[in-house]
Amino acid sequence: IADGDAEDLRRLAAPLHEADLGALIEALDYDDRPRLVALLGSDFDFAALTEVDDAIREELLESIPNANIAEGVRELDVDDAVYILEDLDEADKAEVLGQLPPPERVALQRSLDYPEDSAGRRMQTEFIAVPPFWTVGQTIDYMRDTEDLPDTFYEIFVVDPSYQLIGTVPLDRLLRTKRPVKISDVMNEDQHLIEATDDQEKAARLFQRYNLVSCAVVDEAKRLVGVMMIDDIVDVIEEEADEDLKALGGVKGDEELSDTIWYTVRSRFPWLFANLITAIVAANVIHLFEASIQQMVVLAVLMPIVASIGGNAGTQTMTVTVRALATQELRRSNTWRIIRREVAVGICNGVGFAIILGTVAVMWFGIRDLGFVIGLAILTVLSVAALGGILIPLTLNRLGVDPAVSSGPFVTTTTDVIGFFAFLGIATLWFGLS
Amino acid sequence: IADGDAEDLRRLAAPLHEADLGALIEALDYDDRPRLVALLGSDFDFAALTEVDDAIREELLESIPNANIAEGVRELDVDDAVYILEDLDEADKAEVLGQLPPPERVALQRSLDYPEDSAGRRMQTEFIAVPPFWTVGQTIDYMRDTEDLPDTFYEIFVVDPSYQLIGTVPLDRLLRTKRPVKISDVMNEDQHLIEATDDQEKAARLFQRYNLVSCAVVDEAKRLVGVMMIDDIVDVIEEEADEDLKALGGVKGDEELSDTIWYTVRSRFPWLFANLITAIVAANVIHLFEASIQQMVVLAVLMPIVASIGGNAGTQTMTVTVRALATQELRRSNTWRIIRREVAVGICNGVGFAIILGTVAVMWFGIRDLGFVIGLAILTVLSVAALGGILIPLTLNRLGVDPAVSSGPFVTTTTDVIGFFAFLGIATLWFGLS
Repeated sequence: IADGDAEDLRRLAAPLHEADLGALIEALDYDDRPRLVALLGSDFDFAALTEVDDAIREELLESIPNANIAEGVRELDVDDAVYILEDLDEADKAEVLGQLPPPERVALQRSLDYPEDSAGRRMQTEFIAVPPFWTVGQTIDYMRDTEDLPDTFYEIFVVDPSYQLIGTVPLDRLLRTKRPVKISDVMNEDQHLIEATDDQEKAARLFQRYNLVSCAVVDEAKRLVGVMMIDDIVDVIEEEADEDLKALGGVKGDEELSDTIWYTVRSRFPWLFANLITAIVAANVIHLFEASIQQMVVLAVLMPIVASIGGNAGTQTMTVTVRALATQELRRSNTWRIIRREVAVGICNGVGFAIILGTVAVMWFGIRDLGFVIGLAILTVLSVAALGGILIPLTLNRLGVDPAVSSGPFVTTTTDVIGFFAFLGIATLWFGLS
Repeated sequence: IADGDAEDLRRLAAPLHEADLGALIEALDYDDRPRLVALLGSDFDFAALTEVDDAIREELLESIPNANIAEGVRELDVDDAVYILEDLDEADKAEVLGQLPPPERVALQRSLDYPEDSAGRRMQTEFIAVPPFWTVGQTIDYMRDTEDLPDTFYEIFVVDPSYQLIGTVPLDRLLRTKRPVKISDVMNEDQHLIEATDDQEKAARLFQRYNLVSCAVVDEAKRLVGVMMIDDIVDVIEEEADEDLKALGGVKGDEELSDTIWYTVRSRFPWLFANLITAIVAANVIHLFEASIQQMVVLAVLMPIVASIGGNAGTQTMTVTVRALATQELRRSNTWRIIRREVAVGICNGVGFAIILGTVAVMWFGIRDLGFVIGLAILTVLSVAALGGILIPLTLNRLGVDPAVSSGPFVTTTTDVIGFFAFLGIATLWFGLS
C-alpha cells in the first residue's frame, strides 16, 4: 500500500485507534514509516506516536517537518504532547513551541520545565475545578456549557479561591446526586496529592496503594496545577518492573527490540565487562591453588559446580531483595527479620546440597573424603551467598545506587571467590596438598 | 495497643483506608494480627484483606469464624469478595457462601465458577446497563433513583433486549450532554470485550493497549455479565511483571517476604537442583579434558572466565527475549529479524572480548598462543550464547512452557558446555595435548 500512494491509505488508516496505528507503524519497514506519515498528512493521529518504541518515535520525528509536528501536537492532550516533545533536541523543541499559539505554548513549556520522569511531565493540565458552594446542578450545567474541557476525566476538583484543593467529587457520585445538593456535601475530603516535582514512581505507588484512577497534582504552594491519569500510571508501573527485570538480567532498562545492532552491542558491553573483571578476580583464587589442582585434577572438574550453585543461590536471594526494595515491602522495620530468614534458608539448602553433592562426588570419583570436602564447601558458599544476596543490594540501596543494576556483579564475585576459595582451600588442607 | 484491648483501637483503626489498615496488619507480629481483627469486630473492613500478602490473608482467615467472614464479605464488591473467598478450602468456602443471602451467594458462586486467573474471577458483577432509546436525562434520573448501584463506575453500558452490548457511554460524556439527547447518539460503538473465561493477562493487555479504565465482560453467548476495573488490572500487570522477574532469578512468582523459612527452602530447592544437574553436565565436559588440564594447569584457571562470560551474555539475550514474549513485542513477523540481530550482537561482543581477554591471558601467563586459543573460544561461546539465549525461550514458548521459568537452566547448560568444550578442546588441539 505504501508505495502505491493514495486516498486508499487514508481511508484504511484514518479510522484506526491510535494504539493500532502505532502497531502498524512498528510493523512497517524502516523506510515505509515516514512515508506512511507523509501520506496520511493531516489525517495522521500524533497520539499513535506515544504508542511506539522510543527509537522509532525519534527517527520518525526527525523525518516530519517541525511545522507539521506543531500542527499535530496541538490536537493532543498536554501529557501526550509533552511525551512526544521531550525527546526532541532543544532547537527543534523551541521551533515547534514557537509555532504554537501562546496559551498552548505556555502550558507545554510549563510541563517541560519539570524534571524528567517527574509527575509534572506526565500530568494533564486541563481539569475541572469548582468552588465548594456550587450545587451539583450548577456544576453539571457548567460542564455542559464549557467548550474547553479535558478529553476524559473521572473526577472534578473542589478548590478554594487560592486554588488550593479542598476535595474531590467522583463523576459517579455527581450523577447520583440531586441537583440542589451542594458540592461541599458530596465531596471526598481525604486527599491524595502528588507534587509536580515528585518522581513518577512515587505517584505510581500512591495510585496502586489507594486504587486511584486520577489524582491531583499540586505545585510547591499546594495550588492545583494538573491531574495524573491512571493510563499514564499503568505505563509507569510496567516500565518500572521492566527496568528492574532487565537490569537483573544485565540489560539496560531502555533497550528495545527496535534498537540498532551497534547500539545494543555498546549497551550490553559494560555489563559483560564488569562480569569479566569478576571472573578474573575469581580466576586469581584458582591461580593460588594451581599446585593443588596439578596434584588432584578432579578438583578442577568439581570446582565450577560449587561456584555455580553458589552463584544461583545468591541470585535467588538478590532477586527477592531487589524486588522487595522496589515495591517497598522491605523496610527498616522488617530488614533484620528478612536477613535472618534468608540466612536460615541458605543454611537449610546448604545442608541439603552438601549431602546430595557429597554423595555424587563419592560415587563419581570413589574418593570418600572428597564428599566431606565438597559438602563443607557447599554449605559455606550457600550461607555466604544468602548473606551476600541480601546485604549487597541493601548496602547499594542505602548508598543511593540502584540495586537492580549493580548488585549482580558484586554478588557473583562474592559467590565465585568464596566458592573457589572454600572448595580448593578445604581440599588443600584436608588432603595435605600444597 | 493490641494488648491493652479497647475502644481506643477502634477509634484509631476504623477511619483508616483499607490499604493503610492492610499495611498495619502486615507490620504487626504474627499473634497480634488475629487479635487486631477480633478487637475491631464488625468495624473491621474486610477490604483490607485484599491488600495483604497471600500467606497473611490465609492465616488470618483461618482465625476468623466463618460467620464473621460471611458478614464481612457481604459489604464488599463481588470482585474483592471473590479474591478473599477463592483462597479458602472447599468446606469453609461452602459454609461462608451458605450463610449469605441467596442473591449475593449466586453472584459470588458464579464468579467462583470461572477458572482461576480468569477475567470472570476479577470482574465486578454490578454495572449500569440501559437501552439505546433512553435519553441522557432518563439515564441520569435512573441513576439518582436506584439504590443498588456499584460502588464506583466510569462508564455505563448500552445493551439490546438480549443483553448484548451495543455501546458504552463514559460518564464525562454523559455529564456534558443535554438531557433530551438520546443515549444511542452519544455512545461509543467501538467495542473492547473481554470474555469471562479469558485469562486476566489477556484482559490486562487490552486495557494497556487501549488505555481503558473499565471494560465489559461477556459470557459465551456475548451477554454482558460484568465489568473489569482498572484497579484490578493494575494488580494483574504488577503481578505478571513480578512473576517474570522472579522466575528469571530462579524464584517462584508467589514467593513473599512473609513466607516461612521451610516453605521458602522447598520453593527454592528445585531451581538449585536443576542448576546442579546443569553444573554436573558441564563438569563432565571438564572431566573429558583432565589430561590436558594436568599438562597445562593454567587452563583450569582460565576456563571459568570463558564459561562465565558466555553465561552472562546468554542471560542478557534470554532476558530480552523472555520480556519481549511476555509483552508480545516479539511476534512471528519479527522473529527472524530479532534472531539475526541477537547473533550479530553476540559476534560483535565476541570479537571485542576475544581481543580483551586474549591480551589479558598473554600478559598474565606470558604464553602467546594462549591469547589466540581463549579469543577463539570466547568468540564461539558468545555467538552460541546469543543463539541459545533467543532460541531456547522461543522454543519453550512454542511448546507451551513458560519461558521465564524454564529458560535459565537450559541457557546456562548450553553456555557452560560450549564454553568448556570450546576452550579446552581448542587448547588441546592447538597445544597438541591429549
